[in-house]
Amino acid sequence: MSRSITLCESSRPEHLVQAAELLRRLEEPRSGSGIRSFRVGVSGPPGAGKSCLLEALGCQLLGAGSRVAVLAIDPSSEQTGGAILGDKLRMTKLSASPDAYVRPSPARGSLGGVARATSDAIFICEAAGYDKILVETVGVGQSETLFSDLVDCSVLVLPPVGGDEWQAMKKGIMEVVDLLAVNKADGSTLQPAMATVANYTGALSFVARRHRHWAPKVIPVSAKTGYNIEALLKLIGEFEDSLRYGGELRRMRQQQRRRLFSVAAEELLVDRFRQSGAVAALTARMMPDVVQGHVSPRAAAQAAVAAFLSAGPDEHELPPPAAQGAVK
Amino acid sequence: MSRSITLCESSRPEHLVQAAELLRRLEEPRSGSGIRSFRVGVSGPPGAGKSCLLEALGCQLLGAGSRVAVLAIDPSSEQTGGAILGDKLRMTKLSASPDAYVRPSPARGSLGGVARATSDAIFICEAAGYDKILVETVGVGQSETLFSDLVDCSVLVLPPVGGDEWQAMKKGIMEVVDLLAVNKADGSTLQPAMATVANYTGALSFVARRHRHWAPKVIPVSAKTGYNIEALLKLIGEFEDSLRYGGELRRMRQQQRRRLFSVAAEELLVDRFRQSGAVAALTARMMPDVVQGHVSPRAAAQAAVAAFLSAGPDEHELPPPAAQGAVK
Repeated sequence: MSRSITLCESSRPEHLVQAAELLRRLEEPRSGSGIRSFRVGVSGPPGAGKSCLLEALGCQLLGAGSRVAVLAIDPSSEQTGGAILGDKLRMTKLSASPDAYVRPSPARGSLGGVARATSDAIFICEAAGYDKILVETVGVGQSETLFSDLVDCSVLVLPPVGGDEWQAMKKGIMEVVDLLAVNKADGSTLQPAMATVANYTGALSFVARRHRHWAPKVIPVSAKTGYNIEALLKLIGEFEDSLRYGGELRRMRQQQRRRLFSVAAEELLVDRFRQSGAVAALTARMMPDVVQGHVSPRAAAQAAVAAFLSAGPDEHELPPPAAQGAVK
Repeated sequence: MSRSITLCESSRPEHLVQAAELLRRLEEPRSGSGIRSFRVGVSGPPGAGKSCLLEALGCQLLGAGSRVAVLAIDPSSEQTGGAILGDKLRMTKLSASPDAYVRPSPARGSLGGVARATSDAIFICEAAGYDKILVETVGVGQSETLFSDLVDCSVLVLPPVGGDEWQAMKKGIMEVVDLLAVNKADGSTLQPAMATVANYTGALSFVARRHRHWAPKVIPVSAKTGYNIEALLKLIGEFEDSLRYGGELRRMRQQQRRRLFSVAAEELLVDRFRQSGAVAALTARMMPDVVQGHVSPRAAAQAAVAAFLSAGPDEHELPPPAAQGAVK
């Protein structure tokens, strides 16, 4: 499974062919079957205790007979070297279980690339029989809109915070969150956690609903003591029921597939452009003039795109799958 | 000038040809000359008073004999309908001057598209003899990194805020800011403004420098009363001097052109893909299977890209410039 996911993360032309073939084979037996899996996104700022909470949720789900996959997305990984490294080390109990699968973030540059690779990974996990897919991401900005293309339920984890600290971000966050878990409701941080819950419960009442049959909820939890972990899972289950009711889950997944098609196509296209020998040759020739200001970046870009599109079939055609050997 | 900028904002294939030709002609006389213009980015959250400050700065610059262009970027305009609409209405004095040019944000979808269009607009303004280019953008997130590809100096405008409110964003903001103007240092908000200045002055001392010869500075200003507007311009001038010293401005611009080439090329390529008849036909045929889950978004994307790249020259070739008539 890990090798399959790694294959799908690659942008090497021969891997693309193999990955497409792999995904095609995985799809066949699934056609026409109902939606068995449920995908939960868990986001939040660094220090909110996401990994710890995922471990607690995952272990509880395992106990209830689920098979659990945890996938991490870190859109910042290219620049910073990755904020969600070492997840396996942090989720020691979960990683040890034969019914759990923990996978760090693909180290891809673009948000689109990360979204596509994660979508493939979810697909592979589901084909392998994992029915609860937890997707972890850091941050509270652009990654949320990415989430809406990947998961069914979006859980935001916050640490207990001062009233003002999240004020500026509140509106944007609330619009894309189904459940808000205020972590660290234990010991000396219990009171601040409860205050944060009250703060957000009030704020949520002003937010337009994303789903017809669900109003976002706030819950205090403690990944450390286990407080309300079961209650949080119960809320996730209720949300899942509300989505399945009336076919909303199916419609959401269909809409996601439509958007992922565009994201994947544009990512593939840009990858091919970056790997093009014709483009590299032309760029090398033009770049000194671009840098010196004799040719505008735009004019050079137009020439590079034209060169790319008029390159011969050798440049564009992927190697035939037969030449690559079968994927095991 | 407005028509030229509008032409460059378009993504219609025939406009691309005309725009490239226009930019090429504008470039010729500039070759080899020194960098006469200076580009200042002004960003900040809604309510910080950016437009008001731009008007104050712009009028002061006009008084000093400069020709001033104000360009707005609003990356969110596609979704929200535009947060920086009506700039001309708000910058009444500036708009009225024959030596000033005010232009609202291009309504483009992608950040790359907005960056490219704004880069063209800057270029056109400079060719028309505007020597101070002010670029306004809303928000304090991704737009900052966009700024580093477009402007020479990045000014962040903040309203007077409580100590905690900006804490969470501080680090990210500080790393890309050259000058921080705390606005509304007047009347009842004078004290909070001064407290905010003190707060950020302390924070700045911990941030790694972007430029060898410049340490970021914080200054209280009032666009309303004119307080410290001249001092802010003096700081911008000192920063400009520090960049010109030792050729750093030239190196920055060269690096920007290099990055804009990539941004522009990828945007053009994706536009061509979206406008492709071959892709549209294939997508219409595949989409029902994608949506129903019989074909993975990725496999469909791969097929669409393959169809795009193997489409005949009719699909790919831009109409010849001669057929379009000259740009006036």
